[in-house]
Amino acid sequence: LFRSSGPIQADYPLFAGERRRLAELVEAARRGGIQVPVPRDPGGGSTHEQHKRNYMTIYAAGLLYRVTGDGAYADYARRLLLEYARLYPTLGPHPAASVDSPGRLFWQSLNDSVWLMYAVQGYDAIRDSLSDEDRRTIDEQVFRPMAAFLSEGQPQVFELIHNHATWACAAVGMTGYVLRDDELVARALNGLDKSGRTGFLRQIEQLFSPDGYYSEGPYYQRYALEPFVVFAQAIEANEPERRIFAYRDGVLLKAIRATVQLTQGGYLFPLNDALRDKSLKTDELYQAIAIGYAATRDPTFLSIAQWQGHTTLTPEGLLVARDLAEGKAQPFPFASRLFRDGPAGDGGAVTVLRAGIDEHGQTLVVKNSAQGMGHGHFDKLGWMLYDDGAAVVTDYGAVRFLNVESKDGGRYLGENQSWARQTVAHNTLVVNETSHFDGQWKVGERIAPRQLYFAADGPTRVSTAEVEGAYPEVRFRRTLAQLEVDGLAGPLVVDLLRVQGSKPAQYDLPLHYAGHITDVGFPLHSYPAERPVLGKANGYQHLWVDASGTPEAGNATLTWLNGERFYTYRMLPPAGTRIILAESGANDPRFNLRREPVLIERLENATDATFVAVLEPHGCYDPAAETVTDSRSRIAALHHVHTADADLVALELVDGRTLTLAIADDVDAGKAHRAELDGKPLEWSGHVGRFEAPT
Amino acid sequence: LFRSSGPIQADYPLFAGERRRLAELVEAARRGGIQVPVPRDPGGGSTHEQHKRNYMTIYAAGLLYRVTGDGAYADYARRLLLEYARLYPTLGPHPAASVDSPGRLFWQSLNDSVWLMYAVQGYDAIRDSLSDEDRRTIDEQVFRPMAAFLSEGQPQVFELIHNHATWACAAVGMTGYVLRDDELVARALNGLDKSGRTGFLRQIEQLFSPDGYYSEGPYYQRYALEPFVVFAQAIEANEPERRIFAYRDGVLLKAIRATVQLTQGGYLFPLNDALRDKSLKTDELYQAIAIGYAATRDPTFLSIAQWQGHTTLTPEGLLVARDLAEGKAQPFPFASRLFRDGPAGDGGAVTVLRAGIDEHGQTLVVKNSAQGMGHGHFDKLGWMLYDDGAAVVTDYGAVRFLNVESKDGGRYLGENQSWARQTVAHNTLVVNETSHFDGQWKVGERIAPRQLYFAADGPTRVSTAEVEGAYPEVRFRRTLAQLEVDGLAGPLVVDLLRVQGSKPAQYDLPLHYAGHITDVGFPLHSYPAERPVLGKANGYQHLWVDASGTPEAGNATLTWLNGERFYTYRMLPPAGTRIILAESGANDPRFNLRREPVLIERLENATDATFVAVLEPHGCYDPAAETVTDSRSRIAALHHVHTADADLVALELVDGRTLTLAIADDVDAGKAHRAELDGKPLEWSGHVGRFEAPT
Ligand SMILES: [Zn+2]
Ligand SMILES: [Zn+2]
Repeated sequence: LFRSSGPIQADYPLFAGERRRLAELVEAARRGGIQVPVPRDPGGGSTHEQHKRNYMTIYAAGLLYRVTGDGAYADYARRLLLEYARLYPTLGPHPAASVDSPGRLFWQSLNDSVWLMYAVQGYDAIRDSLSDEDRRTIDEQVFRPMAAFLSEGQPQVFELIHNHATWACAAVGMTGYVLRDDELVARALNGLDKSGRTGFLRQIEQLFSPDGYYSEGPYYQRYALEPFVVFAQAIEANEPERRIFAYRDGVLLKAIRATVQLTQGGYLFPLNDALRDKSLKTDELYQAIAIGYAATRDPTFLSIAQWQGHTTLTPEGLLVARDLAEGKAQPFPFASRLFRDGPAGDGGAVTVLRAGIDEHGQTLVVKNSAQGMGHGHFDKLGWMLYDDGAAVVTDYGAVRFLNVESKDGGRYLGENQSWARQTVAHNTLVVNETSHFDGQWKVGERIAPRQLYFAADGPTRVSTAEVEGAYPEVRFRRTLAQLEVDGLAGPLVVDLLRVQGSKPAQYDLPLHYAGHITDVGFPLHSYPAERPVLGKANGYQHLWVDASGTPEAGNATLTWLNGERFYTYRMLPPAGTRIILAESGANDPRFNLRREPVLIERLENATDATFVAVLEPHGCYDPAAETVTDSRSRIAALHHVHTADADLVALELVDGRTLTLAIADDVDAGKAHRAELDGKPLEWSGHVGRFEAPT
Repeated sequence: LFRSSGPIQADYPLFAGERRRLAELVEAARRGGIQVPVPRDPGGGSTHEQHKRNYMTIYAAGLLYRVTGDGAYADYARRLLLEYARLYPTLGPHPAASVDSPGRLFWQSLNDSVWLMYAVQGYDAIRDSLSDEDRRTIDEQVFRPMAAFLSEGQPQVFELIHNHATWACAAVGMTGYVLRDDELVARALNGLDKSGRTGFLRQIEQLFSPDGYYSEGPYYQRYALEPFVVFAQAIEANEPERRIFAYRDGVLLKAIRATVQLTQGGYLFPLNDALRDKSLKTDELYQAIAIGYAATRDPTFLSIAQWQGHTTLTPEGLLVARDLAEGKAQPFPFASRLFRDGPAGDGGAVTVLRAGIDEHGQTLVVKNSAQGMGHGHFDKLGWMLYDDGAAVVTDYGAVRFLNVESKDGGRYLGENQSWARQTVAHNTLVVNETSHFDGQWKVGERIAPRQLYFAADGPTRVSTAEVEGAYPEVRFRRTLAQLEVDGLAGPLVVDLLRVQGSKPAQYDLPLHYAGHITDVGFPLHSYPAERPVLGKANGYQHLWVDASGTPEAGNATLTWLNGERFYTYRMLPPAGTRIILAESGANDPRFNLRREPVLIERLENATDATFVAVLEPHGCYDPAAETVTDSRSRIAALHHVHTADADLVALELVDGRTLTLAIADDVDAGKAHRAELDGKPLEWSGHVGRFEAPT
C-alpha cells in the first residue's frame, strides 16, 4: 500500500507518542483475548462496539508490526482475521438493521465500510508475513467477500454520489490494491459499470466545490475527508501516474486546507448539525494533515499537527513527526476567504472575514451557502462572530450528546429538529415565525443564495449576498462588513439587511450572543411572576421571554461582557420595531438544550424593511488588576439613509470622528456612484465606499 | 525603610518584568504632566481616579529610582509631591463624603490611608536625594499632616479593630519610620494612647484566628493582608528585634499561607461577598508572597510567584525573582486543613478536604465558620466542591461587576443582598423559606457553628459540625466525608445532615451544581407554557422553577456533565420529599444575576429529619476521541439506618462491592461503638468507622 518499505525506527516525539498510544490499545485488546462475536446489537451495543474495537486493533497491530518488526503484533492481527474468516461467510443481513443499507457486521453498511478500510490497512502490513494458507483464507473469506458485498452487493449505496458511497469505494479500492485485484480498483474509481458516472473520481467532482468546500458544512467536511484522503494516498502510492492530488485542480488538497480555514482556535465553525466541541484534534484530521503534508511538504501543515499533538503511525505521519522535530513548522496562514458551495461553485458560499492571519483575530463567518442536505440548517445569510478568542455571536450547533447513552443513545435529539435547525435559532431573518423553505430541506436543496460580492483586502472587508425563495415572494439581501478603525479595541461589524416582500408580514431578526448583559439602552418590560414562552412552533416554543421594549431613535443598544471584553450591539431598527430579550430552554422537559440568550428585533405588518446594526467590541475588564476601561461604547450615534441607488450607514464616534459606509445596490466593480449625506457629496466606485472625517 | 541599600541592578525575568511594567506606568503618567486636582468626585470620578494614579506613580517612580538610579524618576516624584504640598494643607473634609469617616483627598479616609502607604514607600526611596528645603516642604506639608489626620484626626477609625484601621495604622507607622518620628510609630503599633488596647499589634491578635484565617473569608483576607504584611516588613526592616513575623506564633505567615490554601487553581474560594474571578494574581498577593518569602525563604512560595507571573520591585521581590530564576521553586503543599475562625479559634471553622497535595485534586470546602461581619453570607454548614479542576458544587459568590459603571458604578448590586447572601443561594438547610439568623448579620455575629470533628488523613476524610440558633429552636448537624474508593474516577462525597426542630416546619436542602443535566432518575412535572417563580422573598423570588417531582426509594438521582466528567448526586430524602429543579435569574429586570441551576429537596411539615446523599464523579466524555465511558453511576444503591447511637450510610457499587460509613453521634475519639447492618455486626471506635466488603 505504501511506497516506503522496511521497518520505521525513528523516534520523533509525535511519532513515538502514536506508537505508545497504539501499543496500549493493542495491549488492552490482547488482554481480552480474541473476541469476534456474532453480530446482534445496533449502534452502541456490545457486539457493535467489539467489532469497532477489532478493526482498530487490526489496523494498529499491523502498523505496529511494520514499525517495530515485532511478530507478536502480526500474529495477533492474524488470529483476529482468521476468526473473521470463520464468521464472515456465515453472515446475512444484520439482525438489527433498520435502514435500507444493512451491513453484515454492523446494523448499517457504512460501518462495514469503515471496518474494511481500517482492517485492510492493518492487513496490508502483515500480509507478506503470513503462510500461504492463512493468506488465502483471509483473502478469500474476509476481504474479497467484503469488498464484493460493499460494491456489487449494495449498488444502492455504492453508486450514490454521497459520503457513504465514498467510504465504500475507498474500502473496496484499497482492498483491490492489497489483493492486487484490478477489478476492485476499477469499480472503486469509476463505479460498478466503470463508466465514471459513479465511483470515487466522480465523487471528488461532485461532493466538493471548486474551493474544496463540502456541502454539509465544516463538521461533516471533517468526517467526509477521511475516505477521500486515505484512498487518495493509496492511489498515489500505487498509481502515482494518476496524480490524484492534482486531480480537478488539486481539490482534495484544497479540501484539507479549507477544513483548517473553517476553524477558530482549532474548533470547527458549528454550522449545520455540528457539535461545538469538535476540533481538529480528531482521527480524520490526523490522517488528513499527515497525508496533505506528505503530498505537498507545505510547512504550515506542521503547525496544525503540532496543535493536534497527534499524527498517524504511517510513513506520512513519520514525515510530519520528523520535520516537526526538525523545526520546519510555519504558522498556518489563516485568511479571509470565500468558500463557494456546489460542484460548480454556484451554490452560494461560506465567507470568512478575518482580522489578520492570526487565528485568534476577529473572525466573521457568513453562511450564504446552499442547504447542505438533511443535516443542513435553515440559516440562509446568517452569521457568527469570534472575537478575542471567544464566540461572541453564536450558532447553536446541534442538539446531541455524542455517545451519551441517557441522551437517546447519543443520537441527534428531538430538539435538534425542533430548535437547532430552525431559522429562529440563527442570526438571520424569520418571516411570520416560520423557517426558511418552511423547514423542508429538500426544498432548500433547490434554492441557494447568491454571493453577490466579496472583498477582503485592506481595512474594509465586505460580503454581500441575496436569497430569493426562502419565503414565498420574499427576497432579502444582506451586507456584512468588518471594518478596522484606528483606536478601537477590535474591528466593527456593520450589518445591513434589506427585505422586500409582497404582502404584510412579521419580520424577526434574532441575534444570538454570548455574554452577560451589562447595559440596555432602552426601557424594558419584564415578567416578575412567570416567564412566558415566545411562540408555538418552528423553534419559538423553545424560547423563554425575559423582557421586551420598543426603543426610540438612538437608544437601541445592548451591551454585554464576554471574557475580558465588552460588546455593544447598536441597532437602527425600522420604526415600531419591538425588541425581545429571550433565552433558549423552554419546552425542554429532558434538559436537552443549553440555555443561551438571544435578542430579537420584531417588526410587524411590514413589506419592505431595512435592518441596520453595528456590533462593536470595546474596553477591557481585567479582574487581576481590578481595572475596567471603556465599558461604554465608543460610538455616539448610528445613522442610515437610502439614496437613489445606495445605502449609507454612518457612525459618529465619541471622539468626534465619523465613518460612513456607502453600499451601492449595484455590486458592479467599475460603476461610479454619488450620494449626499448631510449636504456633503460622497463619491465612490464599485459596490462599497468608505469615508472618514477627519481623515 | 529597607535594610538593603544601593541600586539593585539584577535582571531576573520576573523582576525585569516589574521594572518594565512600572516604567510604562510612570511614562504614561509623565505624558499627562503633573495633575493634582482639588478633590471633588466620589469613587470612580475623575479627581478620585487621578489621586489613585498619583500614589501609584509616586510609589513606582520611587522604586524605579532606587533600582535604576535614574534621577528623572526621583524628579518626577518630587514634583508631584511638591504639588501635594501646595494642595494638602488647604483641604478640609472631602466635598463628596457620605460616610462618617471622610477623607481629605478621597470621599472616604480609607483611600487616604492607601494613598499614604503607597506614597510614603516611594518617598522613602527618593527622600535622601532631595534638597533640604524640598524635603522639609514635603515632610511638613504632606506626610506629617496626613499621618496626623489619619491617626489623631480620626480616632473613630484609627482605634477600631477593623481592616480600615489596619490601613491607617500601617500608613501612619510607615510614615513614622520614614520621617524618623517615633511618636507616629508608637501610635501605629499600640494605639493613640499607646496602651496596646488598639493599634497594629492588637489588630494582629484580634483580626486573625490562630490558624491565620480572616473572619470575612478568603476574598477579603486577600485584601486585608496587604497592610499587615507591608507594615510588618517595614517593622522587620527597622526594628528586627520585635520579631514581628514570629509575633503570636507567626500568625502573619500563617495568614499568607492560609490565603494560598484557600484557593483552587489559583482562584480564591468564593465564600461570602466574593468575586469568582479573583485569583492570587493581584497586587496584595504579589506583596504578600514576596514578603513571606523574604521572611522564611520557604521555596514553596516561589511556585506561587511563578504562577502569579509577578512580584514587587522591592528587595523582597528581587529575592523572589532571583531564587525563582535559580530554580529553587518547590510545589506549594496544598493540603486538607482546618482553619479555625475567631481570635481564640472557637468561632467555628472553614474546613478543606483535598485528595492529595495537587491543587487540582478534588477539593471539598465546608463553611462552618462564623458570620464574618457585614460581608458574610447566611450559609452555615454549607459546602462546595471542586473536581477535575472545575467548580462542581458551587457558591454564587457576590453579585457585583467590579468597576463596571453601568452596574451601579461597580458597587455590590441589590441582588447581592436579595440573592447571593441568602441561605437558599447556598448548599445548606433552609427552614420555612427564611435565611439563617433571619438574614440579620449582627445576630449571626453572636452565634458560630461548632466544629465537632475533623480528620483528614488517609482515604476517609471527615468534617462534622453543628449549629444551634441559626433558626429558633432548630439545631442541625452535618457530616461531610470525602472517600477514596479504588476503581472510581474520583473520591465520593457523602453528606449526612440531621435536623432537630421543635415544631413542624418546611425544610429545603439546595444543591447548586454546575453542568448540563444528562439524566434524572425520577419522573418530573415540567412547565410547558410559563415558568413559575419559586417564592416571594429571601432569595426564593430569584428562582425560576423548571420542574419538580417526588422520587421513590432508589430513584432520587440527578446526573450532569461538567467538562469531561459526569457527576451523579444520589439522594435518600425523607419520605414525601419533593425535588425541585430551578435556576437563578427570576425577578432580575436589570440582568444582574448569572443563571445557574439548583436542585432543592423539599420536606414539608417536619420536625426531625435526616438528609443523606452521595455525590459521585464518574466516567469520561472525550470529544476528541469521540468516546464516552461510564456515563452512568457506578453506585447501585444507597441505604441509611439510624441505630441507637450512630448513622450508618451504606453504598452498593455496581461491581458488587459494598462500602459502609458508620458515623457515631458521639465525636469522642476513644469511644467504642457497635451496630448491626443486615444482620452483620459493625464495630469501630471514635466518631467514624469505615467498612468494605469484599475487602
Ligand atoms: Zn445552525
Ligand atoms: Zn455565598
